[in-house]
Amino acid sequence: MKKIIIINGPNLNLLGKREPSVYGSETFENFLDELRKNHTHLEIDYFQSNIEGELITKLHETGFTYNGIILNAAGYTHTSIAIADAIRAIKSPVVEVHISNTFSRETFRHHSFISPVAKGVIVGFGLKSYEMALAYFD
Amino acid sequence: MKKIIIINGPNLNLLGKREPSVYGSETFENFLDELRKNHTHLEIDYFQSNIEGELITKLHETGFTYNGIILNAAGYTHTSIAIADAIRAIKSPVVEVHISNTFSRETFRHHSFISPVAKGVIVGFGLKSYEMALAYFD
Amino acid sequence: MKKIIIINGPNLNLLGKREPSVYGSETFENFLDELRKNHTHLEIDYFQSNIEGELITKLHETGFTYNGIILNAAGYTHTSIAIADAIRAIKSPVVEVHISNTFSRETFRHHSFISPVAKGVIVGFGLKSYEMALAYFD
Amino acid sequence: MKKIIIINGPNLNLLGKREPSVYGSETFENFLDELRKNHTHLEIDYFQSNIEGELITKLHETGFTYNGIILNAAGYTHTSIAIADAIRAIKSPVVEVHISNTFSRETFRHHSFISPVAKGVIVGFGLKSYEMALAYFD
Amino acid sequence: MKKIIIINGPNLNLLGKREPSVYGSETFENFLDELRKNHTHLEIDYFQSNIEGELITKLHETGFTYNGIILNAAGYTHTSIAIADAIRAIKSPVVEVHISNTFSRETFRHHSFISPVAKGVIVGFGLKSYEMALAYFD
Amino acid sequence: MKKIIIINGPNLNLLGKREPSVYGSETFENFLDELRKNHTHLEIDYFQSNIEGELITKLHETGFTYNGIILNAAGYTHTSIAIADAIRAIKSPVVEVHISNTFSRETFRHHSFISPVAKGVIVGFGLKSYEMALAYFD
Amino acid sequence: MKKIIIINGPNLNLLGKREPSVYGSETFENFLDELRKNHTHLEIDYFQSNIEGELITKLHETGFTYNGIILNAAGYTHTSIAIADAIRAIKSPVVEVHISNTFSRETFRHHSFISPVAKGVIVGFGLKSYEMALAYFD
Amino acid sequence: MKKIIIINGPNLNLLGKREPSVYGSETFENFLDELRKNHTHLEIDYFQSNIEGELITKLHETGFTYNGIILNAAGYTHTSIAIADAIRAIKSPVVEVHISNTFSRETFRHHSFISPVAKGVIVGFGLKSYEMALAYFD
Amino acid sequence: MKKIIIINGPNLNLLGKREPSVYGSETFENFLDELRKNHTHLEIDYFQSNIEGELITKLHETGFTYNGIILNAAGYTHTSIAIADAIRAIKSPVVEVHISNTFSRETFRHHSFISPVAKGVIVGFGLKSYEMALAYFD
Amino acid sequence: MKKIIIINGPNLNLLGKREPSVYGSETFENFLDELRKNHTHLEIDYFQSNIEGELITKLHETGFTYNGIILNAAGYTHTSIAIADAIRAIKSPVVEVHISNTFSRETFRHHSFISPVAKGVIVGFGLKSYEMALAYFD
Amino acid sequence: MKKIIIINGPNLNLLGKREPSVYGSETFENFLDELRKNHTHLEIDYFQSNIEGELITKLHETGFTYNGIILNAAGYTHTSIAIADAIRAIKSPVVEVHISNTFSRETFRHHSFISPVAKGVIVGFGLKSYEMALAYFD
Amino acid sequence: MKKIIIINGPNLNLLGKREPSVYGSETFENFLDELRKNHTHLEIDYFQSNIEGELITKLHETGFTYNGIILNAAGYTHTSIAIADAIRAIKSPVVEVHISNTFSRETFRHHSFISPVAKGVIVGFGLKSYEMALAYFD
Repeated sequence: MKKIIIINGPNLNLLGKREPSVYGSETFENFLDELRKNHTHLEIDYFQSNIEGELITKLHETGFTYNGIILNAAGYTHTSIAIADAIRAIKSPVVEVHISNTFSRETFRHHSFISPVAKGVIVGFGLKSYEMALAYFD
Repeated sequence: MKKIIIINGPNLNLLGKREPSVYGSETFENFLDELRKNHTHLEIDYFQSNIEGELITKLHETGFTYNGIILNAAGYTHTSIAIADAIRAIKSPVVEVHISNTFSRETFRHHSFISPVAKGVIVGFGLKSYEMALAYFD
Repeated sequence: MKKIIIINGPNLNLLGKREPSVYGSETFENFLDELRKNHTHLEIDYFQSNIEGELITKLHETGFTYNGIILNAAGYTHTSIAIADAIRAIKSPVVEVHISNTFSRETFRHHSFISPVAKGVIVGFGLKSYEMALAYFD
Repeated sequence: MKKIIIINGPNLNLLGKREPSVYGSETFENFLDELRKNHTHLEIDYFQSNIEGELITKLHETGFTYNGIILNAAGYTHTSIAIADAIRAIKSPVVEVHISNTFSRETFRHHSFISPVAKGVIVGFGLKSYEMALAYFD
Repeated sequence: MKKIIIINGPNLNLLGKREPSVYGSETFENFLDELRKNHTHLEIDYFQSNIEGELITKLHETGFTYNGIILNAAGYTHTSIAIADAIRAIKSPVVEVHISNTFSRETFRHHSFISPVAKGVIVGFGLKSYEMALAYFD
Repeated sequence: MKKIIIINGPNLNLLGKREPSVYGSETFENFLDELRKNHTHLEIDYFQSNIEGELITKLHETGFTYNGIILNAAGYTHTSIAIADAIRAIKSPVVEVHISNTFSRETFRHHSFISPVAKGVIVGFGLKSYEMALAYFD
Repeated sequence: MKKIIIINGPNLNLLGKREPSVYGSETFENFLDELRKNHTHLEIDYFQSNIEGELITKLHETGFTYNGIILNAAGYTHTSIAIADAIRAIKSPVVEVHISNTFSRETFRHHSFISPVAKGVIVGFGLKSYEMALAYFD
Repeated sequence: MKKIIIINGPNLNLLGKREPSVYGSETFENFLDELRKNHTHLEIDYFQSNIEGELITKLHETGFTYNGIILNAAGYTHTSIAIADAIRAIKSPVVEVHISNTFSRETFRHHSFISPVAKGVIVGFGLKSYEMALAYFD
Repeated sequence: MKKIIIINGPNLNLLGKREPSVYGSETFENFLDELRKNHTHLEIDYFQSNIEGELITKLHETGFTYNGIILNAAGYTHTSIAIADAIRAIKSPVVEVHISNTFSRETFRHHSFISPVAKGVIVGFGLKSYEMALAYFD
Repeated sequence: MKKIIIINGPNLNLLGKREPSVYGSETFENFLDELRKNHTHLEIDYFQSNIEGELITKLHETGFTYNGIILNAAGYTHTSIAIADAIRAIKSPVVEVHISNTFSRETFRHHSFISPVAKGVIVGFGLKSYEMALAYFD
Repeated sequence: MKKIIIINGPNLNLLGKREPSVYGSETFENFLDELRKNHTHLEIDYFQSNIEGELITKLHETGFTYNGIILNAAGYTHTSIAIADAIRAIKSPVVEVHISNTFSRETFRHHSFISPVAKGVIVGFGLKSYEMALAYFD
Repeated sequence: MKKIIIINGPNLNLLGKREPSVYGSETFENFLDELRKNHTHLEIDYFQSNIEGELITKLHETGFTYNGIILNAAGYTHTSIAIADAIRAIKSPVVEVHISNTFSRETFRHHSFISPVAKGVIVGFGLKSYEMALAYFD
């Protein structure tokens, strides 16, 4: 059975509560339950942290044994060379996802340090973005 | 039955023949056959042109009646305000796809005029990018 | 009798149908009829294409014999050196018009390759922009 | 009877005297006489100042009661946020005009703080630019 | 016998008629006749189009069998990633030529998307630029 | 008793009348009355001008004897090196205030020539910004 | 009784010890005692962390129940999109404060990701900046 | 006898009083007396204003009859297109002078709109800069 | 006996495991053992964290008592104003080291916020960079 | 008999020895011998120096009497305004050549100070670039 | 008797011969003779070189004993940090002069590395610029 | 015995005499003597020139036989592509050194053309920088 981990960055713990017009009103926990129900042949782990360095450490821990990593680094996407370096350093393929269409928002959200080192990028499909990423590893 | 159209821009007629290390060695026609076989409940049209204005005209023709448009505008992605304007002008949702990871290539491929007006963006999964886009409309 | 041609660029065939809040809800054909009725002493030709190169060819065809050209190059305004070169190459005076106020929209609409080689520029008066341009040649 | 005011900015008092190859050799006073003769159904006021703040004050004085303002802010066009703020603050529509084609001159004349807040912009038709602006309010 | 094709981009159909001070007063057809007379051991084809996509298609058609391609993409030189991608995709060596010295003209003519993917670049020798390119394949 | 002067720049004479959604609907005169009532132990002078040079002159007149200057240079904030030079030249501490949050508005409002030479900066609290500045001198 | 929290970012734990010429020689603890003494009708909480993600978490914890947040994000002010996103996600008004005049220091301190999403900004009044922010909530 | 005018811009009325380490401690009036004593064969007029538009008007008044104009536009040097336009519009040669070495001060003082239209530029010799400019007209 | 601390930033815990072609295949622990053996007259402490704020805290803890700090901030080098501020705030001299030649890698690695506040910088000598830094304190 | 001089700039003395993958393995002396054999009706002089000023002096010495100058300024191409000024100052036509395709190498090799003042530019044909330049003078 | 040296940079040996419309038709030698005749109380040395490093060496040789240095570094003005460093390193005051108005020429002539370290700058008065510089040392 | 050469660029002949606060007061000759005494097992050559091209020639002469080159190109560091090309062309490893911390000085000293092609870089340790470089070759 393939092992996949979803890693969520800062503020994504507030999902469902934070700017619903941008991010929707479903909590990530509910969404995760459904996801697991619909993909029983995959082991789907989950990790969220607001701390950049903890995201890096989790990438290290999972990045040599998991079959795939789905990463939404949120605000760190645009500023963290260190997370991008972590992806460079590990072996598991990383798919970058974003809930909202970052390209139709502020200019500072248009550049991602992660995209060049990710396997691929999925942007703008709401929570469905995670599902599509999962399909890639399926 | 949902109607979907895949619109491919310049040079994508050479797929399978063009820089195989970047774009793979499968022709798009073969890939399309498989796609249709695996999605018999969808009507999947296809259009390719090297001419920017013909892509625009096709967007006009399909953009008020089709359920979804999957667009790989290739080189025009980064230079065509006119195609982006066509997307703004029509009603069908457009998903932007790219075969290669444009973000790990030349700087001039990092900006897309299409992304801000697309429903979502899928980048870097090879021909599988089209399949993931299709799944969105499924 | 003076001969004038109005040349419209990409997506302007959708006028009346496309983003009415920006471009109004009148079709260009209706507007053209009225224009001709009110300017019976002028011969007013009309051409529209979504293809950059066809706009260039039309500029070549009319640019040595017509008394005036009214050009709304739409999205190509901001990206086409080739159209600007065509204007440099011909003899008829070209007036650049825009329906919406391009300067209060996205930054990429603020620069025009056509303006420096046009006789003059009229921006933002709705379809009335064409009428004002016509008055210049009257 | 509609009330219109033409407001001219710095150095335009020298018209006819200043760089005739760029601005023509007619004085603005002569031109204004003709304009009034040809538009007897309009009340056309005129104001010129070299002082940025006096232009702002005049915009305040006329901007809540006049039917239209024709503004050539000359050199202040490219540097004055304060004049643009005055236009934002008043109610009368403002048409921005320029005698010469500012887009074919020095780069620093290509950007206007006024254009985004003007109703429309008319550039490059010589003194005829004012006449075309007037026609808009007619 | 080697097969060479000269491909000319937008506005070059006007050669001899267009801005003679920049481009000279000889038509390309006359020049081509002379060229063929002086190089009877070469088969020299010719293609001109104002349409970007037709230039791309011609590059595809000739780019796997011709011994050399001489390309003057004119105004598209500075804006077309799609033409550059076509050159990347084909196998025949492409020599980029320009009649005028693009580096002593407007800034927007200083950058070429084609140069990095061309075999070599020849700029500024008038029509002689084509002759020098031909000599390369001789 | 401490002497304080509030100096307001261009368009602030329209307060209450100008873009109420941005600047509120209270006139500055009313606000000033209240301010004086609540700070009877301070002598609060007031000056407003639309003319940059008059603001400079007023800074000279008060800048060697007053205990504090509260300056809202409005549109000149972002363009006037001369006002900043006046502040450098005088001795009284100057507090820069803005009614609206200039940092959440247009990019050209994000830079202030005055901030580096001001004692401190207060931005975005509505008319309360002036009150907070006054408190600093209290 | 209103609940207010002061959140201090990296290096502010060294206050009194760190570059006294820039930041003064008083410790924040002493200052806080005084502040509480002078504002007995307010409940003033305090939090300091050098870790960006802990600041975010604290904003989440307090941002739906406190009446006001006073945030000095120090060095993270200029680099943290994630903290700005946290402010966007919560409901309590946030006032940004800085002890020194960031605008008269290095260029990289002139831009703040926090300012556009803060209620208001207070810069350069030493520790008094916090007091003025408190007054806003009073 | 040659007629020369020295025109001083904003804040130069404070000379002797303003930042003596940068501008020296002599008043301009004293310096002017000496200058006149040493150049009795020249008629030396003097004008100072803090108002940009008044400087422009003075350039108009003297610019068609005086033999030379010595202009220190101070802070307006770097921001005023309108003053530069006035110099373009008049006939008398204008020499630009600066007391301090503007090139060793803040970056925003390195660019002058006036320099390209001045006869020549003299920078950094203290009040002696004016004397050297006078020598040019001598 | 002098006390020195080596502080390593994010991803350096993977040394020996991460991109061996760039960083070599020796683990830092092995290297450290050797280093201590060869410098028995120095007390060499070691700290590694992936968390920016923990690096700051460690700089605070050691920066007033240690004789020297050798810092490889890895990915934070290019983004962390907060770490640079910590160095400004402490007293011990800090030597910045990098294993790879950052100047021959991606552009975003060419700028370091730390370099201007470090005593000196050593770049590109592999693990030997640390040894050379140590030699400085010897 | 026409007199031509080939002037080679810094490091070109190492040709054949230096980066053979970029510059080939033939020495320039060998190549020159062949060139002279094949062009016996031309007098071909040669000069190489690593010193920018010596290249300038040689341009002065030959630039008023030679029929043509072929210049490969190598690394000085991109930095030397002084060499470009020398070309402006002399009368003989100068053809700029480069062995490698400078446009497909580092960004700092894409701009040439020499191109705008050269008669023409030949880039990327290996040593054949010199031969093509010679053909121009033939 | 004061010792002054005039140091001229590249291409100035061609004065009188080079672009007379820009630089005049007098040779520097003739001009120097006159200069010496009119300033018999000064010892005026002269040095010209096309080699950057020789200019530096001459600055070293004279920069500790001469009373003044008049430097026209010509093309090196805009590119030579090394010459600017030489001026920083010596003790004699250096006056920078230019014959033409560099600010009304190409953009790359607008920036001078020398100006910030010169005593003062004199630009655009033809050969008279040298005379005015001499007057400064008189 | 290993052969090492130290190559110093422009103005470094003034060491001890030039800006002692930045570069110290010891002459390089004295320092060199000491260096040789402490490294008797190394043959240490020395070369200094103010002429860019002579530095290049020396790199050529030593770059195929010496075991190491220590290069302080001083002012040429930031402007010389030609020196960097010389380093690319030779075989001996080059270590770049700087006496002062170039990163805490003017912005134009932050970029080095040499760093990307050097083995490693040592910045800011005073003359000790050379000693540390020597240690690398030891």
